[in-house]
Amino acid sequence: MQVIKQYVEQNKERLLSELFDLLRFPSVSADPKYVESVLQTADFVAQKLRDAGADNVEVCTTAGYPIVYGEKIIDPKLPTVLTYGHYDVQPPDPLELWKTPPFEPTVRDGKIYARGACDDKGQFYMHVKAFELMMQTNTLPCNIKFMIEGEEEVGSSNLSIFVKANTSRLKADVVLISDTSMISMENPSLETGLRGLSYLEVEVVGPNRDLHSGVYGGAVANPATILAKMIASMHDEDNHIAIPGFYDDVIELTEAERSELNAAPYNEEEYKTDLDVKELWGEKGYTTFERTGTRPTLEVNGIWGGYIGEGAKTVLPSKANAKISMRLVPNQSSDKITELFTKHFEKIAPPYVKVKVTPHHGGEPVVTPTDSIAYKAAQKAIEESFGKKPIPTRGGGSIPIVALFEEVLGIKTVLMGFGLDSDALHSPNEKYDIFNYYKGIETIPLFHKHYAELSK
Amino acid sequence: MQVIKQYVEQNKERLLSELFDLLRFPSVSADPKYVESVLQTADFVAQKLRDAGADNVEVCTTAGYPIVYGEKIIDPKLPTVLTYGHYDVQPPDPLELWKTPPFEPTVRDGKIYARGACDDKGQFYMHVKAFELMMQTNTLPCNIKFMIEGEEEVGSSNLSIFVKANTSRLKADVVLISDTSMISMENPSLETGLRGLSYLEVEVVGPNRDLHSGVYGGAVANPATILAKMIASMHDEDNHIAIPGFYDDVIELTEAERSELNAAPYNEEEYKTDLDVKELWGEKGYTTFERTGTRPTLEVNGIWGGYIGEGAKTVLPSKANAKISMRLVPNQSSDKITELFTKHFEKIAPPYVKVKVTPHHGGEPVVTPTDSIAYKAAQKAIEESFGKKPIPTRGGGSIPIVALFEEVLGIKTVLMGFGLDSDALHSPNEKYDIFNYYKGIETIPLFHKHYAELSK
Repeated sequence: MQVIKQYVEQNKERLLSELFDLLRFPSVSADPKYVESVLQTADFVAQKLRDAGADNVEVCTTAGYPIVYGEKIIDPKLPTVLTYGHYDVQPPDPLELWKTPPFEPTVRDGKIYARGACDDKGQFYMHVKAFELMMQTNTLPCNIKFMIEGEEEVGSSNLSIFVKANTSRLKADVVLISDTSMISMENPSLETGLRGLSYLEVEVVGPNRDLHSGVYGGAVANPATILAKMIASMHDEDNHIAIPGFYDDVIELTEAERSELNAAPYNEEEYKTDLDVKELWGEKGYTTFERTGTRPTLEVNGIWGGYIGEGAKTVLPSKANAKISMRLVPNQSSDKITELFTKHFEKIAPPYVKVKVTPHHGGEPVVTPTDSIAYKAAQKAIEESFGKKPIPTRGGGSIPIVALFEEVLGIKTVLMGFGLDSDALHSPNEKYDIFNYYKGIETIPLFHKHYAELSK
Repeated sequence: MQVIKQYVEQNKERLLSELFDLLRFPSVSADPKYVESVLQTADFVAQKLRDAGADNVEVCTTAGYPIVYGEKIIDPKLPTVLTYGHYDVQPPDPLELWKTPPFEPTVRDGKIYARGACDDKGQFYMHVKAFELMMQTNTLPCNIKFMIEGEEEVGSSNLSIFVKANTSRLKADVVLISDTSMISMENPSLETGLRGLSYLEVEVVGPNRDLHSGVYGGAVANPATILAKMIASMHDEDNHIAIPGFYDDVIELTEAERSELNAAPYNEEEYKTDLDVKELWGEKGYTTFERTGTRPTLEVNGIWGGYIGEGAKTVLPSKANAKISMRLVPNQSSDKITELFTKHFEKIAPPYVKVKVTPHHGGEPVVTPTDSIAYKAAQKAIEESFGKKPIPTRGGGSIPIVALFEEVLGIKTVLMGFGLDSDALHSPNEKYDIFNYYKGIETIPLFHKHYAELSK
C-alpha cells in the first residue's frame, strides 16, 4: 500500500493532467458530427497504453468506432484480468445548463467537471494509470489485458462481433470494470447486480399533416393526446407497470437479500433535497433501493410533437413521438420485453391513429455471485484501501456487455466502480471527485494482488 | 356585376402579381428574426392603399407591429364599412415539408402556394383590390375604412389599445372581415359564429436536473409521465372535457339550429380520406360540424421533454412542457376558462412535481345574428355572385378581435371569407385558389352595394 501511495503522490499532477487531455476530446458516439474526435480519442488511448508499458497495442477496426486493445503477459500460468472500459461519452446537451464547457475540464471544490469525467473516462483511465504504477514499481502480479471500446453509449453493437471474433486474444479469467458508483467514500460498496435495458422509439400518427386546431379541433384525434393516454396507461395507481406479462420472469428477492440491501446507509431527506423533490415516487411496496436495483421500470426518456418553438401556434399536430426505455432485472430478457412492449403498444393504439415502434439497443440484467474469488478479491482490495468492507449493492444502470462476456468468453465480471450518485452521469455538469480518481488508482493494484493470491 | 367582371378580367394579371409581391414578405410576427420583413410589409400595404385611392393612409405606430389605416369618405351621411385584416402570417415551419418555399408564391393546379396565401394576405388583399375596382368604376356606394394589423397571429395585444384610442377615427356601422372559409365554391357559405380561445403553456418539473434513468428510474416521478397522465385526464371516455365547471356557460343549440347546421353538405368519407385517418374522434353525441363549430375543445398544440435528438439517451428528464389551447363557444369567457384550467391543472398535479401554468393570448366566442342588415347584405352579395344563397355555418377557428370591436366600437362583424378547408392554414403548403381570389374581388363590391341599399 505504501509503495502505491508514494507513486500516486509523486505523480499526482501528471496523473490528473493526462486525464484532462483525455477529457478534452468530445468523443460523442451518438452524434455523427463528432466522428473525427471519437477517432482521435481512440488513438490517444492507444498511445497512453503504450506509454504505460502495454504490448501488442492495437486500434482495432470495426464497422463502427474502433476498439483499443493492449496487454501485458508476464507468465501464461498466472491468471489474466481483462479490463473493459469505454472512451466514448454521452451527448453534452442541454449545453446552456453547463456552468463551464463540457469538454474543458474544470476543477471546482475538488471535483473535475466535464462530460465523461466519471462515465467512463475518469474511471477507465484509473486502470491505465494503475497498470503504469504496477509496471513502474514492478508489482504486476498477473497478466492484464485492456479492451476499451467507443460505442458503449450507443449500444456497443460492434463489440459483440469483436468479442466473438477474438475469443483467443481475449482469453482471461475475469473481467474488471469501473463504470459504476459507490454509496460514498465513507461507505465503500461493490455492485453485485445490474439492470438490463430495453429501449424503443414510438410514433403516433393522426392526420396526414399538421392541422389548424380551430378548423379541425374536436373532429379528429390529436396524436399528442393519444400518445399521452397510451403513456399514462403504462403504470397503474400503484406505479406497477401495466403491460400484461411484464413481470412474469422477474425473480423476487428473498427476505434475507432484501434485508441486506436495505441495510445500506440511506438518508431519504438528503436524497430528496439533492434532487429538490418534495416526495419520492415508485412502485408500491418497495423501498428506494429495491425500486432502483431490483425492480424493473419504464421511463419516458423523451417526448415531442407539434409546435415547440417560441410563442403560440394553434396547431393540431400530425404526429407525436416518444423515446421509452425499460430497466430489467433477472431473469427478464431484453428481446422478450422489447417484443412484449411492441405488441402491447400496437394493441392499445386506438383506431384513430397509426403507431410505429422502433427498437433500439438493449441489454440483459446480470448478477455477480458474492462467493466468487473475483468478488472476494475486490472486497479485500477495498477493505485494505478504505479500511472498511464494501457493502454489496444492486445497481440501477445497465452495462449490457457484461452478459455478453459471460455468454461468449465464459467469464464473470467484477464491477468495482469509484463513482458517486452525485456525479450527474448523463446530465449537465457531470463531475468526478479528484479524491475518488486517486483512490481508484490506489485500489486497483490491490485487486490484482488479491486476485493473484486467491487464484493460487 | 358585368362592370365588375369586366374590370377583373382586364386587370387579372396585375391583380395576381401584386398579391405575389405581398406574399413574398416573410411577415412572421411570432419570431423576432423577421422584424424587418414585417415592417416592410406594413409599408407595402400602405402604398397599395394609396395607389387604390385611399386618403389619410397611415402606418400607425404601436408598442409592437404597426397598424395600417386608410379611408375614403365620400359622404358622411352614407354608412361606413370598416374592413379589418392582418398582414402578418404564421411561422412556416416545419420547413422541410413544403414542396416549394413558403415565401416564394408558386402556382400549381390553379392554386397559389405560400404562407399567408389564404391567412390572411390573399383574403384581405381582395378588399384592397375591390376598393380599387369601385374607385376606378366610380361605383363606391358608401364610406370605407381599412384597418390592417400585424399581430393577429400573436394575439393582437396592441390592437385593443389602438381601437380604444381611435374610436373617432374608426367610427363605422359594420366591420367586414375575410379570414374564414366557405364549404366550397359550389356551396357558398357564411360564418355566423366563431369559437373563442384560451391558450396556455404548462410546465411540470420533477428533479432539479436531468437524471440517469438507470440510477434513479423507479425512485422518482418522471415529469414526462406525470404530464402525460395529467393530459390524459383532460378527456373522459366520451371525449368530454373532464375539467369541473368547464361546460357551465355553454349554450346548447336548439333542435332547429342543429338541423340547419347539419343540413350543410358533408361527406365523411372525403373528410377522412383528405386527412388519411381511418376513424374520426370527438365528443360523443355530436356530429362533426357540431364538434368543430358549436362545442368547446381542448387540444395539445405542442409537447416536449427530455432528449429528443438523434439516437438513444437514457435520461429521466427534469421537466416536461406542453402548449395547450381550448376553443370556446358562447357564452364561455376566455379569462374565466383560463383561470379554471389553471386552478384545475395545479390541483391535479401530484406532490412529486411542481407545475407552472403560463397563459397566452385568448379571445371570446361570437355569434352574428342572421337577421341583421349586415348579414343580409352579405347573403345577397353571395346570392348575386354565386347564383345561390349561402349556407350559414359555425366556424371552428377564433378571431378574438371580433368581440373587441363589438365591445369598444359597438358594432357587429360580418365574416365573409372565401377560403376553403383544404387551404391548410397554419400548416405546410398553405394555399389559396386563384378562382376564390378573383371571386372575392367580384363579390365584395356587391356587399357594399347591398349594404348601402339596405341601410337607406
